[in-house]
Amino acid sequence: MSEITIKDVARICGVGVSTVSRALNNHPDINPETRDKILSVIKENNYIPNNSARNLKRQDAKAIAVLVKGIDNSFFNEMIKDMEAECKKKKYSLVLHHVGFMEDQVDAALELVKEKRLRGIVFLGGYFENNEKKLEQLHVPFVLSTAGAVPTSYSRNLYSSVCVDDEKESYKMTDYLIRQGHHNIAIIYEKGMTESISMLRLRGYQRALSDHGIPVREELMLATRPDIKDFSLENGYAVTKDFLQKKIECTAIYAISDIMAIGAGKALAEEGLRVPEDMSLAGFDGVNIGGYVNPSLTTIKQPGEKIAQETMKLLFDMILKKAECQHKIFDGELVVRGSTRCI
Amino acid sequence: MSEITIKDVARICGVGVSTVSRALNNHPDINPETRDKILSVIKENNYIPNNSARNLKRQDAKAIAVLVKGIDNSFFNEMIKDMEAECKKKKYSLVLHHVGFMEDQVDAALELVKEKRLRGIVFLGGYFENNEKKLEQLHVPFVLSTAGAVPTSYSRNLYSSVCVDDEKESYKMTDYLIRQGHHNIAIIYEKGMTESISMLRLRGYQRALSDHGIPVREELMLATRPDIKDFSLENGYAVTKDFLQKKIECTAIYAISDIMAIGAGKALAEEGLRVPEDMSLAGFDGVNIGGYVNPSLTTIKQPGEKIAQETMKLLFDMILKKAECQHKIFDGELVVRGSTRCI
Repeated sequence: MSEITIKDVARICGVGVSTVSRALNNHPDINPETRDKILSVIKENNYIPNNSARNLKRQDAKAIAVLVKGIDNSFFNEMIKDMEAECKKKKYSLVLHHVGFMEDQVDAALELVKEKRLRGIVFLGGYFENNEKKLEQLHVPFVLSTAGAVPTSYSRNLYSSVCVDDEKESYKMTDYLIRQGHHNIAIIYEKGMTESISMLRLRGYQRALSDHGIPVREELMLATRPDIKDFSLENGYAVTKDFLQKKIECTAIYAISDIMAIGAGKALAEEGLRVPEDMSLAGFDGVNIGGYVNPSLTTIKQPGEKIAQETMKLLFDMILKKAECQHKIFDGELVVRGSTRCI
Repeated sequence: MSEITIKDVARICGVGVSTVSRALNNHPDINPETRDKILSVIKENNYIPNNSARNLKRQDAKAIAVLVKGIDNSFFNEMIKDMEAECKKKKYSLVLHHVGFMEDQVDAALELVKEKRLRGIVFLGGYFENNEKKLEQLHVPFVLSTAGAVPTSYSRNLYSSVCVDDEKESYKMTDYLIRQGHHNIAIIYEKGMTESISMLRLRGYQRALSDHGIPVREELMLATRPDIKDFSLENGYAVTKDFLQKKIECTAIYAISDIMAIGAGKALAEEGLRVPEDMSLAGFDGVNIGGYVNPSLTTIKQPGEKIAQETMKLLFDMILKKAECQHKIFDGELVVRGSTRCI
């Protein structure tokens, strides 16, 4: 089970170590047959030359952690794959750490950075209120990715961020629904800290209604259930089930995540309501699956791949001291599909 | 930005380091007010005591890697979360490594184990033909999880595995469809090595047909497109689109993954075919979302959480030398939902 060394290769081939090394480095001063024999032995035995071994040892000390808040989030899963691809290019390993619902992600980060190998941190999602002091103590570069829920009071030099403007994009969706003739629009959101992504999206919804002179009605603002995991299919389903029992006048449901919208869709189907004939349905994020459910889901598409790549670029630039704290905001895109209609 | 040390705490409190340490260890021999003051300073400054820092330093050297084959797989994403939860309990970090479509995951593993911190490896998915020699060189414990595509010629003491019996479970699904009156059942599978999960599931399908005296027809075996990522929504969609153009008699489509089945569902909808009235649709895996698409998807539910937990238990037992190579097979469950009907 132990690995083969350059000495073993030399022994098997009946040559000296220096000859093996010449073969490895395509040194001209070596008999072609000998070289071919050595290379085939190396191949057969899957010998990994020392120099690459050395590189990998150096790698040893290089890792970045991605702290994910929001367990059931396909949007994040798609981004993690993109981030990991960027890490591979840079020969860093990606340590994945899911932050529990009740767990504070900055506390989790402060523990993780005790790991000397850790060169940087990505916070994926989550919110950062009452955390300014702790963030100051994070002595490795970090980027808040699609978190964008940082109190405006925090110094912009304290952190870097890459995200969309959640309030603006949510306004865009609500404005679109209103222009389709919908005035009774229910929103499924997660009650959270003032600056959480969910509350920002709720604010965009409220502002759009007000700008159109439509009253914001308490009974149409559906908070997710705290007893069910956040941003989940299950939560979108349960909230919509409860709502439909109340028979409140409503022509469109807008969930602040695609996954919750898909959950809501199941509740609508169970109640015999057709989408979009009886109820328009919209989400947010632009996860892949939203284009495949039936009917396909109208949504705000976040440029997840771009955000992931920019997050990693920024993080690595900071690790290499090539960049100071920066804040990038990408535009989302309103993607109109079969789940919404004009009434 | 630098972290506060026990010395700083002592200085701030105007006491000696030993007093701080007594406070930390709830030593009786300390004035209560002093203790409270020290603890409050520690809290305010978010000081992490050395002993936990020491533990975390030890952690430093402890990580396991999860090598994932099959990029777009919700089933794997759900399992990774479960595995990561088990790692956290054991104070290991989980290094995530996606293995590219053309990349050999054992080569990837052999490179990764150069990382001295790596104590074990989980192979999630993938296939292991022509890899016996390389697997022998993996000098850390490893478990093949839901891979189960190992040539029977390999020594059972070479590797551990946790999975379902893919051929048997696929037989179960096909047998169910046949008993619902379906004789023209198309299968969407990935053409791969003889022992790949996909080919095992194909074999179960073929065997069920034969056992029922139904001829296995070439034109109903739909191989995924090599130019589209494997096991993806896109592939299930594309393959079904092509198939429907051919107007081949068929009453049920069975995709060997839920995600591909959902992709197929979109193609059916676009062709104006209703599920299950015009076409029954079935998948495999039992991913969460399958219960939320409309109609909800009939599938073989793999006990993903159990498999993930057993995989980690086995891996950690092997790391701690408490276990030899083992092979665990779990039963899948036929979950009948709205997407299939009796004809």
